Amino acid sequence: MSNRQIQLTTLPTGELTPDHFSLRTTDMPEPGEGQVLLRTILMSIDAANRSWMKGATYRDAVQAGDAMPTYAIGEVMHSNSPRLKKGDVVAAESVWADHTVCDARKALKLPDIRPLSNLLSVYGIAGKTAFHGLIGVGRPIAGETVLVSAAAGSVGGYVGQIAKAIGCRVVGIAGGAEKCDWVVETLGFDACVDYRDPGMFKALRAACPDGVDIYFDNVGGQVLETALFLMNERGRVVCCGAISQYDTADATGPRNLPGLVVVKRLRMEGFIVMDFADQDATALRALQTWVKSGDIKVFEDIVEGLENAPSALIGLLAGDNRGKRMVRVGPDPS
Amino acid sequence: MSNRQIQLTTLPTGELTPDHFSLRTTDMPEPGEGQVLLRTILMSIDAANRSWMKGATYRDAVQAGDAMPTYAIGEVMHSNSPRLKKGDVVAAESVWADHTVCDARKALKLPDIRPLSNLLSVYGIAGKTAFHGLIGVGRPIAGETVLVSAAAGSVGGYVGQIAKAIGCRVVGIAGGAEKCDWVVETLGFDACVDYRDPGMFKALRAACPDGVDIYFDNVGGQVLETALFLMNERGRVVCCGAISQYDTADATGPRNLPGLVVVKRLRMEGFIVMDFADQDATALRALQTWVKSGDIKVFEDIVEGLENAPSALIGLLAGDNRGKRMVRVGPDPS
Repeated sequence: MSNRQIQLTTLPTGELTPDHFSLRTTDMPEPGEGQVLLRTILMSIDAANRSWMKGATYRDAVQAGDAMPTYAIGEVMHSNSPRLKKGDVVAAESVWADHTVCDARKALKLPDIRPLSNLLSVYGIAGKTAFHGLIGVGRPIAGETVLVSAAAGSVGGYVGQIAKAIGCRVVGIAGGAEKCDWVVETLGFDACVDYRDPGMFKALRAACPDGVDIYFDNVGGQVLETALFLMNERGRVVCCGAISQYDTADATGPRNLPGLVVVKRLRMEGFIVMDFADQDATALRALQTWVKSGDIKVFEDIVEGLENAPSALIGLLAGDNRGKRMVRVGPDPS
Repeated sequence: MSNRQIQLTTLPTGELTPDHFSLRTTDMPEPGEGQVLLRTILMSIDAANRSWMKGATYRDAVQAGDAMPTYAIGEVMHSNSPRLKKGDVVAAESVWADHTVCDARKALKLPDIRPLSNLLSVYGIAGKTAFHGLIGVGRPIAGETVLVSAAAGSVGGYVGQIAKAIGCRVVGIAGGAEKCDWVVETLGFDACVDYRDPGMFKALRAACPDGVDIYFDNVGGQVLETALFLMNERGRVVCCGAISQYDTADATGPRNLPGLVVVKRLRMEGFIVMDFADQDATALRALQTWVKSGDIKVFEDIVEGLENAPSALIGLLAGDNRGKRMVRVGPDPS
């Protein structure tokens, strides 16, 4: 029995392309003591995958020749640990492959929620990141204005829907008129501005007549610089990502930093979802409540086939997704 | 009876020089209804004085021919208001002069603390800004490393001494070897790095072997960018000022923002001293406790004589002060 695996053959210095990857056939991996063999079901595709290629972050850097790391959902096919048994469905740090092995104690047994894709979207990292970042870091109050970049993205779409459920005015930023329309009409934002529009600043100012109290920043760069000019005093910038800076070598920083942080007494704060692990049960309950009430609609962008993972990631970096992107490698267990 | 007053005779277009000022003798000013006549005791000399000559800021611009404005401490010599009586000591927006008049309701009666200079330094805006920024925003814990820019300045010197009193490792950044020596030997910082040194990054890394937990930023720009690289996860950047950006048109922002805020989950937060007015009594008690215990030494840079105010300001802009600079115009009341 053989196994397919996608390696990052060379580290990108500029834009990521399919040439940086290769699909290899390897032997089926053998789980050692305390390990399990996993059949990959779904792989999470995230902008952060690209940042891992730029150096050590909250995890080690990806090196040329490594199997491409990913967060994935899989089914236990064989277990050498009393912690897990054949048929268990788990989430784990994994790699782009049909099959992988992992330490049983590093795999998280998943709750009985179907479809499994929801555990990567609304009840997974996307939904939890949106919840913890907006609620835990941003601390919104009804009536405030919340601005969200990458509004059509996996996290941004939930941020806006949660903020609406709380009673905030919600304005999105996305790339292109079509995406902006989708954000307003389908996700229910109050307005959405195209960051490619040269009149972005004026459009944002018109969309935020009372200024911005919380800016949920997924992109950094020029959009962050523009948003800072619209922030109200004591506003909060939730620093969730800097996607505009990941795929480029010569980034420049927002010229109004730290000046406007001082003058407007802003709080800019970064976080990762694990920082709020003790609030995960609260987040799950809230998200389920809002899904049930219809306040949150779940949008998933599922690309079929392991071999399409590189283009799924490259496309994500170019902004072609609507909602949480993932790659389906195999079917949910029956 | 006559009065001396210093006027800004012409607005500087480039560097400020003594030729921009002139000392005039005027009649003694007469307080109107609701006003008081003040004898000037101490005048605060601040970099902001120079920015007032560049246009309207949070206050009106200074015009050619105006008496030079200042924040000052004075003694009430005559009162036409029930709010204040002869002999009261107050702080007020004033001008560079032996005597001035001001509205009684705009004058703040000062607590019975001597010498009065302490009310412009450790117990004044400098000490309170250091306390509220470090304690209220930075939230230091013993054993953490605190990095402070403009370490020889009026605020930075207190930030470092407070952090030492709490049990932190304290590293300063200042301009020039002589100033750095003063920061270490006199203020008691663990180390101080010269920002003019091309090897600043290496020197800082050596001075902060455990990284930086709190960076108290008075300068922004390149120094902020460098400091961000040294921040530990969950570090805090206290945004107090951006001196390096005030006098330039083509500022560029730190290129690692917001990237490192995301990756290291930093908190960058701006504040002004008035945000913490409800904590002022706590700050004063703490500062008095540390002064009494010897943990905080009070350094004041007092220039004697009204006629020396122009050179005191010009020197401050060139960075020749050590601690809070002020001009003594008359003695404290006996």
